[in-house]
Amino acid sequence: MTQRKVVLAYSGGLDTSAIVPWLVENYNAQVHCIVADVGQGEEELQGVEEKARRSGAASCKVADLKAEFAEEYVFPTLIAGCQYETTYLLGTAIARPVIAKAQVEYALEVGADAVCHGCTGKGNDQIRFEAAFAALAPQLDVIAPWRIWDMHSREDLLEYLRQRDVQTTASAAKIFSRDRNLWHISHEGGPIEDPWNAPPGDVWMLTENLEKTPDDPEVVRLAFEDGRPVALDGHALDAVELIERLNVLAGRHGVGRVDLIENRVVGIKSRGLYETPAGTVIVAGLRALEELAFDRDTRRYREHMATTFGELVYAGKWFTPLRLALSAAAESMAVRLTGEVAVRLHKGHALVEQRRCESALYDPHLASFTDTPLYDQKDAGGFIRLWTLPQRVEALRLMRDASQHAKARS
Amino acid sequence: MTQRKVVLAYSGGLDTSAIVPWLVENYNAQVHCIVADVGQGEEELQGVEEKARRSGAASCKVADLKAEFAEEYVFPTLIAGCQYETTYLLGTAIARPVIAKAQVEYALEVGADAVCHGCTGKGNDQIRFEAAFAALAPQLDVIAPWRIWDMHSREDLLEYLRQRDVQTTASAAKIFSRDRNLWHISHEGGPIEDPWNAPPGDVWMLTENLEKTPDDPEVVRLAFEDGRPVALDGHALDAVELIERLNVLAGRHGVGRVDLIENRVVGIKSRGLYETPAGTVIVAGLRALEELAFDRDTRRYREHMATTFGELVYAGKWFTPLRLALSAAAESMAVRLTGEVAVRLHKGHALVEQRRCESALYDPHLASFTDTPLYDQKDAGGFIRLWTLPQRVEALRLMRDASQHAKARS
Amino acid sequence: MTQRKVVLAYSGGLDTSAIVPWLVENYNAQVHCIVADVGQGEEELQGVEEKARRSGAASCKVADLKAEFAEEYVFPTLIAGCQYETTYLLGTAIARPVIAKAQVEYALEVGADAVCHGCTGKGNDQIRFEAAFAALAPQLDVIAPWRIWDMHSREDLLEYLRQRDVQTTASAAKIFSRDRNLWHISHEGGPIEDPWNAPPGDVWMLTENLEKTPDDPEVVRLAFEDGRPVALDGHALDAVELIERLNVLAGRHGVGRVDLIENRVVGIKSRGLYETPAGTVIVAGLRALEELAFDRDTRRYREHMATTFGELVYAGKWFTPLRLALSAAAESMAVRLTGEVAVRLHKGHALVEQRRCESALYDPHLASFTDTPLYDQKDAGGFIRLWTLPQRVEALRLMRDASQHAKARS
Amino acid sequence: MTQRKVVLAYSGGLDTSAIVPWLVENYNAQVHCIVADVGQGEEELQGVEEKARRSGAASCKVADLKAEFAEEYVFPTLIAGCQYETTYLLGTAIARPVIAKAQVEYALEVGADAVCHGCTGKGNDQIRFEAAFAALAPQLDVIAPWRIWDMHSREDLLEYLRQRDVQTTASAAKIFSRDRNLWHISHEGGPIEDPWNAPPGDVWMLTENLEKTPDDPEVVRLAFEDGRPVALDGHALDAVELIERLNVLAGRHGVGRVDLIENRVVGIKSRGLYETPAGTVIVAGLRALEELAFDRDTRRYREHMATTFGELVYAGKWFTPLRLALSAAAESMAVRLTGEVAVRLHKGHALVEQRRCESALYDPHLASFTDTPLYDQKDAGGFIRLWTLPQRVEALRLMRDASQHAKARS
Repeated sequence: MTQRKVVLAYSGGLDTSAIVPWLVENYNAQVHCIVADVGQGEEELQGVEEKARRSGAASCKVADLKAEFAEEYVFPTLIAGCQYETTYLLGTAIARPVIAKAQVEYALEVGADAVCHGCTGKGNDQIRFEAAFAALAPQLDVIAPWRIWDMHSREDLLEYLRQRDVQTTASAAKIFSRDRNLWHISHEGGPIEDPWNAPPGDVWMLTENLEKTPDDPEVVRLAFEDGRPVALDGHALDAVELIERLNVLAGRHGVGRVDLIENRVVGIKSRGLYETPAGTVIVAGLRALEELAFDRDTRRYREHMATTFGELVYAGKWFTPLRLALSAAAESMAVRLTGEVAVRLHKGHALVEQRRCESALYDPHLASFTDTPLYDQKDAGGFIRLWTLPQRVEALRLMRDASQHAKARS
Repeated sequence: MTQRKVVLAYSGGLDTSAIVPWLVENYNAQVHCIVADVGQGEEELQGVEEKARRSGAASCKVADLKAEFAEEYVFPTLIAGCQYETTYLLGTAIARPVIAKAQVEYALEVGADAVCHGCTGKGNDQIRFEAAFAALAPQLDVIAPWRIWDMHSREDLLEYLRQRDVQTTASAAKIFSRDRNLWHISHEGGPIEDPWNAPPGDVWMLTENLEKTPDDPEVVRLAFEDGRPVALDGHALDAVELIERLNVLAGRHGVGRVDLIENRVVGIKSRGLYETPAGTVIVAGLRALEELAFDRDTRRYREHMATTFGELVYAGKWFTPLRLALSAAAESMAVRLTGEVAVRLHKGHALVEQRRCESALYDPHLASFTDTPLYDQKDAGGFIRLWTLPQRVEALRLMRDASQHAKARS
Repeated sequence: MTQRKVVLAYSGGLDTSAIVPWLVENYNAQVHCIVADVGQGEEELQGVEEKARRSGAASCKVADLKAEFAEEYVFPTLIAGCQYETTYLLGTAIARPVIAKAQVEYALEVGADAVCHGCTGKGNDQIRFEAAFAALAPQLDVIAPWRIWDMHSREDLLEYLRQRDVQTTASAAKIFSRDRNLWHISHEGGPIEDPWNAPPGDVWMLTENLEKTPDDPEVVRLAFEDGRPVALDGHALDAVELIERLNVLAGRHGVGRVDLIENRVVGIKSRGLYETPAGTVIVAGLRALEELAFDRDTRRYREHMATTFGELVYAGKWFTPLRLALSAAAESMAVRLTGEVAVRLHKGHALVEQRRCESALYDPHLASFTDTPLYDQKDAGGFIRLWTLPQRVEALRLMRDASQHAKARS
Repeated sequence: MTQRKVVLAYSGGLDTSAIVPWLVENYNAQVHCIVADVGQGEEELQGVEEKARRSGAASCKVADLKAEFAEEYVFPTLIAGCQYETTYLLGTAIARPVIAKAQVEYALEVGADAVCHGCTGKGNDQIRFEAAFAALAPQLDVIAPWRIWDMHSREDLLEYLRQRDVQTTASAAKIFSRDRNLWHISHEGGPIEDPWNAPPGDVWMLTENLEKTPDDPEVVRLAFEDGRPVALDGHALDAVELIERLNVLAGRHGVGRVDLIENRVVGIKSRGLYETPAGTVIVAGLRALEELAFDRDTRRYREHMATTFGELVYAGKWFTPLRLALSAAAESMAVRLTGEVAVRLHKGHALVEQRRCESALYDPHLASFTDTPLYDQKDAGGFIRLWTLPQRVEALRLMRDASQHAKARS
């Protein structure tokens, strides 16, 4: 067996710890690990290089992708509408292309002939990784161990590592499958697989349970430029810092939970719990600006476009012509989204209470009772008569038909 | 001036109280009032016939439309998606066609040649009334006093009534413009015309302020049949009763508030505060069933359709071919929405925590880690390779082009 | 090997002739053939039962599905919009579910445990068949020989049959891959695989080449009821007869050709030549009625819905909740499509020159220069001022900003 | 009456000839005429300045907008999809914003306080002009004589001019209302107002009747860059020249006719005959490239986007945020539309017979029968099993329910 060179998206968790020796044994592979730091936190990153090497990796590179992730993936998704199936803020989905891109770059750097990921064969992430590989480096082979090997459980993996004397802190008793980054954390599996079970109170990690949130509300002020959040309570912050701080503020008030049964790309329905504290506040703020700035046509189109954009991101189609085209449209719209909002964080709510926008179409004089030079109420009569013309034409025809029937009968 | 016979949509408020004598004087009209009871509450209805007669009306009929409103307007809207510009549950908009229909029927009954409403020339309601008139009785003239007369304020109306010795309990100092029915109440005008002002705590009428809501959550169980709510906590209830009870339960926990700057049909942006306690719970419950029952294609299409449906209702296009067609599609989808949910009411939230649905596509065995006869993880490899084929073809072409360029250069 | 009972969708062509013995040998199968008569013509059907038996089939049933195909598949598709990627009238795609349904029914009748088709692994038909099987009889195994066996060409199949002494009239030199039924014929492969090659003149079978079409036009009159064609030139005809006759009339004038590069569901682009003479005329006639009868909202929605409907049909999603829901909407719209058209057939064109529709919204008095009671030109002023209000508000704001900048500078 | 300064969009036709003196008399106006040359032809332009002055105009400026019209209005519309209600290539609609823009610029140049157009109160053009005015110069008054004065017919206008001794070559007997420019000509009114009348043979001006077209086809080659046509039969041409030449070539073969009953913005249905010879060929060529280059997602989205884009252009919403955003998306897609097509012009058809595109996703090896490294037929099995999973889950549930019912009954 000729030796292969494989770059693995490595997390230090149980799955990828087992994949390293498995690649060595089954592909005679030199395994190079890439650890993408997208904000999953210190605990996960600490000692990860050492861990990789102990598993048998030839190299392990930790890449800090946090700023790239926030600015080039999260925010473009934000201004394009940002949701899948109405409520999921795409936290896991958006992280995949930036990780896969770093993985491909490392593969080209070390001259690898294959890339490998630890995603299961039932989820979306395998698609997101492999779609990015297809677009960025179609010449590389893709190895997806979970679709190949005969191991089917955490016990199997632990046994596999034990036989090879690879130490791991992982235990067989992990209840939830989780994915965490700067933008969010997701929880799947365990008791919530039964839709008749309420989410247990101890599943959440970024957001406080309602019972323990402060009784007093807290108001934060967010400033936006061209649809991007740029300042918090008057302090200009870079994307990563702003999200991190806002996660703390909003999480403390229990803001940003979602409990969703969603349709995976592979046709399976699954239940996910999501926590996106900062994201929820930012989205609420941006919506409030959009309400001020977008005319009806633009708002409606953006709503439709957002559905498509969300599906593209969810399905791993980041590096595609359509995603690029929709981003171009979204950027064009977002030039109107410069302004400021005040958001009240309280008992799980992020309520925008105050808003101003440089490009506001809202005009209190127009909305109020009285006339203004811009609006003459008499104009509404003409508007309505034309607006309802087809209904009138049809109704008159029906009356005419009915009277002819009546005549014919008599 | 020949005498005209006019049927007026009468509320007993200041505007329509002035319209009665104004029609008499300016159109030599016999004025017949129709009061639509759509659940606006006892205070508004009490003594309304007497009031009408004192204003000079020839007749006044109170029509109880609550059941028709709930069953034939609210619920069909519910199963079709129910929202305008993402969050407004259409409470005012859905009530207009049922009122206009009763008004037209009364007009035909008394042999009127015109219909009249008290809506302003800047709002949506004029359109909704007149669109219904156009579809149901295009032969009738429409009189819209606010677009004709020279009065421009509550003071003008009060003075007009004072001159004619018509008594009214209305005062000049009304701050908010409100519309209430079984499904919701809306608030416009006053301090909230400035988008930099937070909604004052005393504006709300159906929902408790967060500070005063109970600290303990309350769980309600809702049963649905074909997308309609049919039972509350195990008790079968008719539509009106169910909404009324749930309004109380949910309102006590502060559930159902919306603060929205929306695009009116006439091109004006306006800010509205909406309270829809029962509606918010019902919509949350229905969504939860949809997540269980709708496959991805159906869910996506329903989301798009809902946008259109919401726009039709908002714009007064209830009696139109397209609204009928969309309702046919929605009914076809709704046969899958029979089931039950448990909703936790707490601090302004209506969280669906438990759900079951007869037509659920959700299958915990599919979603979980392990294989099942229905799903072989190896299949995902083939799926992904076909799913990403266009990206791979394009990327390979780009590589080929690049290498040709390189060759050409060397 | 326990014996299996397999029902095969059998055509009598080379592929399915080889599949019969292959199933016997590889699955120890009793093979029952179902031949679906969807109007592919006498040549293909003649002697087909004998052929099947000679290949080794245990039974062969010919089912006449023409009327069901036309009435329950073609016409519902027609009233829902009928096209894939703008121009393909779905002739092959609509036939698959009706065939698969008959196949499943035969499988249940004979107690089979598997169904089998002869579609290749690169096309759409495998998906359409198997999606129907999934919806109608998920308990049956599916056998798709082209994805399993090692034969890769017509030569391989001929050799396979020769070794087993099964006679066939098929030759190795077949140029085009064709599919024919009542509604259309398609041609793929051969020289037209190169998009720089024009379709050869001799590929077409149902439509005359332009050079040979009559110099004189011919006018046919089509009557529709609820969106279905019901009479031709004054003669009431059933669906099958009407399509057959119109195929002859329109084909003679070269009407109904399409040359399309389309996106298959599996991600491949392929080029297809399609001939749908009658269908092209019927669609043109129906469009002409729609132009008379559908208001703008309905027409626009139908156009969007048609895209989705076409994609569902193309992708084999006939037996799905969404297809049913869209059909419900389409039926609701189609009640307005009763009327008559005169279509000029000439040199490849099907030009609707005359049309009348019972539900026409078209009113020549409205369209003409002069005023009518239904339309007062003065109303247009009010309409336009409201229609353009957002643009005016924005433009005034920009002017204000510019003048403030100017002041600030001076 | 203080003197006003008005800029009139002047054509030299009967309507605007009467408007000049009417403005002088009714507004004490100094009237400045702007004649927009958008390719309406020499006959209309010849002597137009002299004519204007004789009508009483203070100035008359002829602005050659042809290149701007083609490059900045027609082509951007082309790459965005280009059609209204499926078939109308928007020839009149696209010309309005460029004319209105020139008119506003002239108004600012001469210091006018109002702009005026000669459009009727029943059509779309009044909206298109006034929407452009609203966006570009909201401070200017708009005068729309046809919605104000008491003249209602050509006779009235002729009489009006006769009384003022203004000479005109216009006659009372004009049958069709026409609008011509570089891109197209439209015909409305007269006998075709009856939808049961076929278009008379002598109405057409740019396209030959089928009977008189050459018996021999002609093949033209069109080259595109980024979605714009740039060369004809190997000769690089600027936009105006290319359209002019292709109009002659295609018109001679009868290419580019449309007979449409469309929905005007004001709610009226009207019938229009359109001739767009070059446009029809260009659109056909561009489609053929799109078929080669656009993946399924992109193509589908562009189709939806085109519908919206067409509606925006039709409704005069050129200078709007949404139009800009859609153009940004369209430009992003169009970078893939560089290539060449050969189009056969024959008997009213423009058939693309040959095409090549630099960014083609089409790969004959993929489409053909045989396997390639890019596509393994076995993968299709996995694809289909996932693709049809929801149907299978539902069908199995139904079977389970049915068997439980059966058990319960026995």
